[in-house]
Amino acid sequence: MAYELYYWDGIQGRGEFVRLTLEESQTDYIDVARQTGRGMGTGAMLELMRSKDEPQIPFAPPFLRDGDMIISHVANILFYLGAKHGLLPESERLRHVANGLQLTITDLVAEVHDTHHPISTSLYYEDQKDAAKARAGAFVRDRIPRFLGYFEQVLQQNPRGPRHAVGDAISYVDLSLFQVIEGLRYAFPKAMGSVVGDYPALMALHGEVAKRPNIKAYLNSKRRLPFSEDGIFRQYPELDLVP
Amino acid sequence: MAYELYYWDGIQGRGEFVRLTLEESQTDYIDVARQTGRGMGTGAMLELMRSKDEPQIPFAPPFLRDGDMIISHVANILFYLGAKHGLLPESERLRHVANGLQLTITDLVAEVHDTHHPISTSLYYEDQKDAAKARAGAFVRDRIPRFLGYFEQVLQQNPRGPRHAVGDAISYVDLSLFQVIEGLRYAFPKAMGSVVGDYPALMALHGEVAKRPNIKAYLNSKRRLPFSEDGIFRQYPELDLVP
Repeated sequence: MAYELYYWDGIQGRGEFVRLTLEESQTDYIDVARQTGRGMGTGAMLELMRSKDEPQIPFAPPFLRDGDMIISHVANILFYLGAKHGLLPESERLRHVANGLQLTITDLVAEVHDTHHPISTSLYYEDQKDAAKARAGAFVRDRIPRFLGYFEQVLQQNPRGPRHAVGDAISYVDLSLFQVIEGLRYAFPKAMGSVVGDYPALMALHGEVAKRPNIKAYLNSKRRLPFSEDGIFRQYPELDLVP
Repeated sequence: MAYELYYWDGIQGRGEFVRLTLEESQTDYIDVARQTGRGMGTGAMLELMRSKDEPQIPFAPPFLRDGDMIISHVANILFYLGAKHGLLPESERLRHVANGLQLTITDLVAEVHDTHHPISTSLYYEDQKDAAKARAGAFVRDRIPRFLGYFEQVLQQNPRGPRHAVGDAISYVDLSLFQVIEGLRYAFPKAMGSVVGDYPALMALHGEVAKRPNIKAYLNSKRRLPFSEDGIFRQYPELDLVP
């Protein structure tokens, strides 16, 4: 039976980290909110989230249904899928390293979100623009170098070589790092343009992931939506700067 | 060999979620940054974080060392410890439910942090007070009910009864929910005072955890530091309000 991925229609968002792993592993999945028909669409997703008897109720999308399991949160979903589909090392030690790296990516993504919504997700961006400028400035100056410097170091210090974040093979962490670089380049083109040279291993990894046949096919398909100002990585020129 | 817990000295912070699990399971551990002597203290923690050859380098505390493993991020550490020490259900399905719940707690804790640091962790609270007031207001009005309402529903919809978040026995998720309630009551006494009646199962769980012998002994020990305005849950009266 195909996996059912539940995520907001119309954006890449956090769902995209799951899609990349599903696409790389060529696993059948239904992107529920993007489908129409019985049990499909955003309505079906909201119905499940509002269920008054579901024992595995998720707090927010994305979540994945596999038979009678409902798995929520990107890092949790990837840990589950990675183990089943060869995108996570076999060793227990490296599995926890991978999960730790993915949780650092989770934190980075939350911080990216908060550059345009520093006060409240209930307010429009336009109503928190001053705070957004202050937060985005701090993010570009302090946090991009801190996070990307860290991931560069992880690659450089990998005893199996700098081509992968964990072990000597592709994992969902590599796919997620690809997406982070894609997103940061979209949202902060000036800031990223001035620093990419500082992260050679990370940029090489990004290039290698983009060339993988399954990823390449996905990126060229209609399933890959463009970045937009409804997603997490948003291009607001007033939030971008050369650090 | 005892586990080594690495976390900032002087505060409960994120390390406290790990301590509660270690204390409940009566597992030997060394709180490295709080000790003195060779290989101990904050210096030892920073040295490991700045290592130029460590292949499992952590992004930030807390992290746990178990022999040759270094495990970072609270949810990752708890998943590891919970499986080893009977604080996580046996079934794969429920393990992923527990991990998903813990990741929702992770998000809540990050939002609590951002009520006093909405712009940047590099700035003092006093230098981002206006934004903090706006963010804390939205947190109290929108997010506390959203998160606590969710956890109340999780308890109420647990097919094994509302005494536990997952299955029919104590797990690290229950311990973490206890800490969340403790922290929110400390940081937002007015806001919490007006809504506790809305979350009977959550409050009952909080009371039951506090009475567990190992937890009670820990809370009465010197190992349990008080909440303070250096931690994540901070009591700034100007950020508290009756919603």
